[in-house]
Amino acid sequence: MDVGFIGLGRMGGPMARNLVKAGHRVRAWNRSPVAGELADGMDLVATPAEALQAEAAFTMLADDAAIREVLLSSGALQSARPGLVHAVASTISVGFAGELRARHAEAGLGYVSAPVLGRPDAAEAAQLAVMVAGEKDAVAKVCPLLDAIGRRTWVLGEDPGQANAAKIAANMMLAMAIEALAEAVVLTGGYGLAPEAFFDLILGTLFGCSAYSIYSTKIASGDFEPGFAMNLGLKDLRLAAAASEKTGRRLPMLDALRGRMAEAVAAGLGDKDWSAIADYARQA
Amino acid sequence: MDVGFIGLGRMGGPMARNLVKAGHRVRAWNRSPVAGELADGMDLVATPAEALQAEAAFTMLADDAAIREVLLSSGALQSARPGLVHAVASTISVGFAGELRARHAEAGLGYVSAPVLGRPDAAEAAQLAVMVAGEKDAVAKVCPLLDAIGRRTWVLGEDPGQANAAKIAANMMLAMAIEALAEAVVLTGGYGLAPEAFFDLILGTLFGCSAYSIYSTKIASGDFEPGFAMNLGLKDLRLAAAASEKTGRRLPMLDALRGRMAEAVAAGLGDKDWSAIADYARQA
Amino acid sequence: MDVGFIGLGRMGGPMARNLVKAGHRVRAWNRSPVAGELADGMDLVATPAEALQAEAAFTMLADDAAIREVLLSSGALQSARPGLVHAVASTISVGFAGELRARHAEAGLGYVSAPVLGRPDAAEAAQLAVMVAGEKDAVAKVCPLLDAIGRRTWVLGEDPGQANAAKIAANMMLAMAIEALAEAVVLTGGYGLAPEAFFDLILGTLFGCSAYSIYSTKIASGDFEPGFAMNLGLKDLRLAAAASEKTGRRLPMLDALRGRMAEAVAAGLGDKDWSAIADYARQA
Amino acid sequence: MDVGFIGLGRMGGPMARNLVKAGHRVRAWNRSPVAGELADGMDLVATPAEALQAEAAFTMLADDAAIREVLLSSGALQSARPGLVHAVASTISVGFAGELRARHAEAGLGYVSAPVLGRPDAAEAAQLAVMVAGEKDAVAKVCPLLDAIGRRTWVLGEDPGQANAAKIAANMMLAMAIEALAEAVVLTGGYGLAPEAFFDLILGTLFGCSAYSIYSTKIASGDFEPGFAMNLGLKDLRLAAAASEKTGRRLPMLDALRGRMAEAVAAGLGDKDWSAIADYARQA
Repeated sequence: MDVGFIGLGRMGGPMARNLVKAGHRVRAWNRSPVAGELADGMDLVATPAEALQAEAAFTMLADDAAIREVLLSSGALQSARPGLVHAVASTISVGFAGELRARHAEAGLGYVSAPVLGRPDAAEAAQLAVMVAGEKDAVAKVCPLLDAIGRRTWVLGEDPGQANAAKIAANMMLAMAIEALAEAVVLTGGYGLAPEAFFDLILGTLFGCSAYSIYSTKIASGDFEPGFAMNLGLKDLRLAAAASEKTGRRLPMLDALRGRMAEAVAAGLGDKDWSAIADYARQA
Repeated sequence: MDVGFIGLGRMGGPMARNLVKAGHRVRAWNRSPVAGELADGMDLVATPAEALQAEAAFTMLADDAAIREVLLSSGALQSARPGLVHAVASTISVGFAGELRARHAEAGLGYVSAPVLGRPDAAEAAQLAVMVAGEKDAVAKVCPLLDAIGRRTWVLGEDPGQANAAKIAANMMLAMAIEALAEAVVLTGGYGLAPEAFFDLILGTLFGCSAYSIYSTKIASGDFEPGFAMNLGLKDLRLAAAASEKTGRRLPMLDALRGRMAEAVAAGLGDKDWSAIADYARQA
Repeated sequence: MDVGFIGLGRMGGPMARNLVKAGHRVRAWNRSPVAGELADGMDLVATPAEALQAEAAFTMLADDAAIREVLLSSGALQSARPGLVHAVASTISVGFAGELRARHAEAGLGYVSAPVLGRPDAAEAAQLAVMVAGEKDAVAKVCPLLDAIGRRTWVLGEDPGQANAAKIAANMMLAMAIEALAEAVVLTGGYGLAPEAFFDLILGTLFGCSAYSIYSTKIASGDFEPGFAMNLGLKDLRLAAAASEKTGRRLPMLDALRGRMAEAVAAGLGDKDWSAIADYARQA
Repeated sequence: MDVGFIGLGRMGGPMARNLVKAGHRVRAWNRSPVAGELADGMDLVATPAEALQAEAAFTMLADDAAIREVLLSSGALQSARPGLVHAVASTISVGFAGELRARHAEAGLGYVSAPVLGRPDAAEAAQLAVMVAGEKDAVAKVCPLLDAIGRRTWVLGEDPGQANAAKIAANMMLAMAIEALAEAVVLTGGYGLAPEAFFDLILGTLFGCSAYSIYSTKIASGDFEPGFAMNLGLKDLRLAAAASEKTGRRLPMLDALRGRMAEAVAAGLGDKDWSAIADYARQA
């Protein structure tokens, strides 16, 4: 298929390359110049608007604001190839997903939200977990492309925001798992238990899954190079709080965690991996 | 070995039977009469003191207060067979573990804390996860017995309270996992996602471990028959808060969760499984 | 004026007597029999419906459920004297105020919410602070009656729920002031400061108002006889949380306080004055 | 008396001038040059060490770190006039007060903590509220000086940290009062009540004291020019949390408030008056 790709960063780059490997023609755009080998096999284009001259397109940009600037304010969307289906793979707010849906419909384009779970190494290996939501035809059109970048795709509904809500909730749960590890380490550490000994117990019993194995390793090692920076983690907790507003229900653990992470960021840990919240717990 | 066993309830009964099956002679005591088949192969004795006329003994009673009454206030401990090693398998406070250690030492007895993870069916199948801490000789003496009731034993240190701290922290993490599921269901439910669809996503990606699979099933089914009653769960969160006091560190997610569970108990859910906190989240 | 009065308890009794003193004819009903001197000068009637055969009527019953039973389920409202204006003086939920408004309109009656601030001694002395909201004519009709029971009336709007929201928010602030005192006592007590010494400082500087003087006295004395029972306080915090739901905004201090008070109630303090939360803070 | 004064900022300047007015000889030092009229009647000295060539001295610097640098790292304290009594008027941590006490004792000097409540206009008018704690002789020596800068002095104990704990707790209560106003405005605003109308009610009933009148005015006006910057407020909440650690007790409202204020600072409000937390509450 003729596919556009906007944003060739640490996640977007490998995703675009996997589309090339799967035999698609990729028209790629990145804000800053990219090294030749990273774009091997792609057609590098000069503007986002050119990337949208395709049957389908992906966007993998940092956040709502970046997408708004590159696609909406620039007018790129209005000049997209008629019938294009556009998949936004970033973690964006549910509210913005709704706006994107409407703006695409106005422009005669299809829109799906297709956020992904996984780090750059999973992107490289085409092993991302992909969530997708949007109108059936639009989803059907991009599904083969999603298969090329991930190990499995979960189709979550016909409203694009449903995929974003799921991604935001999954990230919220991940942050809660990290803070749970952090608080457990504080508690057991008060009695002289080494983190490794406690982690061995819980990974061998109730918590033997990747959320806990990945982050217990980071916490035990004390190596908090990102990874996923705490500033971004705090942003995602904000998205979770915003997404929950319409329910009118309180999410007390989210509130507590968000306050705690904001404190850690205020204390200067914003550039560390978000699991550095465990270091903050031991000191604060 | 000649082994005493105090407390033949839903957990203690199967544990004692597995000791019999492993070839040990079990002198068992229970507060209320037990049906003959439950005590098959055991010597039922008339007092806790008689159960302690053994080389080693287990106690599986509800909480600190029950153990204090049956073993300390009654004088049973003082008349125990010299050299007995006593393993308390209940979830007790770290502070009480310290007191038990001292009282046993005064009486010339060995003491270990040996709390277990697992539900009655795991007890029946000798598949409990066992934590143990205490003086090396005492731990060594009971380890073969622990092997008879569980699938694996984690030796956590020479201070008995270390095993209790680990158990309390593991239960705290479990409660946090349940509340994380509950809050995620509220958030995603606000956008029309069914719990099953969201659970399928997270169990298939980051959270594919028993803590999440067991409780997501309960939450999706809406069947909150215990299981583990929320009253007891709230008690364990209290133990966690008490255990963390000496660290002088704040555990903000624990605080938030404890407040939330206290609200749910105040709203009448104390006798439900503690995963009914998810029902409270949807309504409160 | 010919005035009905439903509920002659510790607050309602003195309020009704002050209406008599001000020259009004009072048709009073109470669920249980009342001593003669308490009803001096009133016409005791046999049913709530008879109390509503008046130009205006007050209801001072415990909560939403009691009012629903006595006035709605009983059919009393439907047989009220045409044109009656009904003032509910209890602390009820904002949602129920909306329902009452609609039900009165259907029955051709006027409705105002008129909750009060003050304890029984203030009711006795006609020194209550009265909030009122409702349609202008209805408010105008009851204002002379409100003047007879309070020292001042605040007219808060044309939607009855506005008075309830104000009352609920004021009670929330009061509970927050109590918990603020409690936490400050814990903090300063850690350095050997007596509560009296700290209270003297803050009452003499920033906090010289009745909320703080009343409750600092109770906390310093350790006398937690109600007063206002913590069970009722927790109910009011629930009303505050429910009232805030429609805003979609988080109230983190309310959440923390509500969790804490639920814990204190779970720990057995529900029948104490709500300032016993300070005792809980020192121990928990 | 011959008095040193270190730190002639918005608070220290007026305090030093009031010492001059009361007839004391003031040897003043400031890090940056000060306008002549601000130092009218003082002897401006070139180093902190020279300011300490006096019978008594005040320090009014920003925080622990500034005091450590100017007085300890510089060696100024070691060369102070023997017998000097030193009063630190800033809000410092309880832990640092303990260190200062020990360092002064080693150097043969007296030390008191003398934090103040009040804004620059109160400092100008010699109407500060002064807390003081320290050894009796040292307190007695500086009391006449404290009378010259404030309207009343509260003597809180013989351990200097007691005055700091009281100041920190008072500031914590102030922040809680502000957040209580903020949450009440959100709740009542959801039903169309104007902040002014609600504030009129609570100031006229339970909350008629300066903490609430000052900050309700700021919140109603929406003018959040400091005043007291939220960054500094968050610092003081950190001091409160640190001071409470040794008690081993949880302060749940403090935790919630600290998390919330950290969020507001992370959202860019650090330079606003801390009452801008009310703006954050309306939006977050």
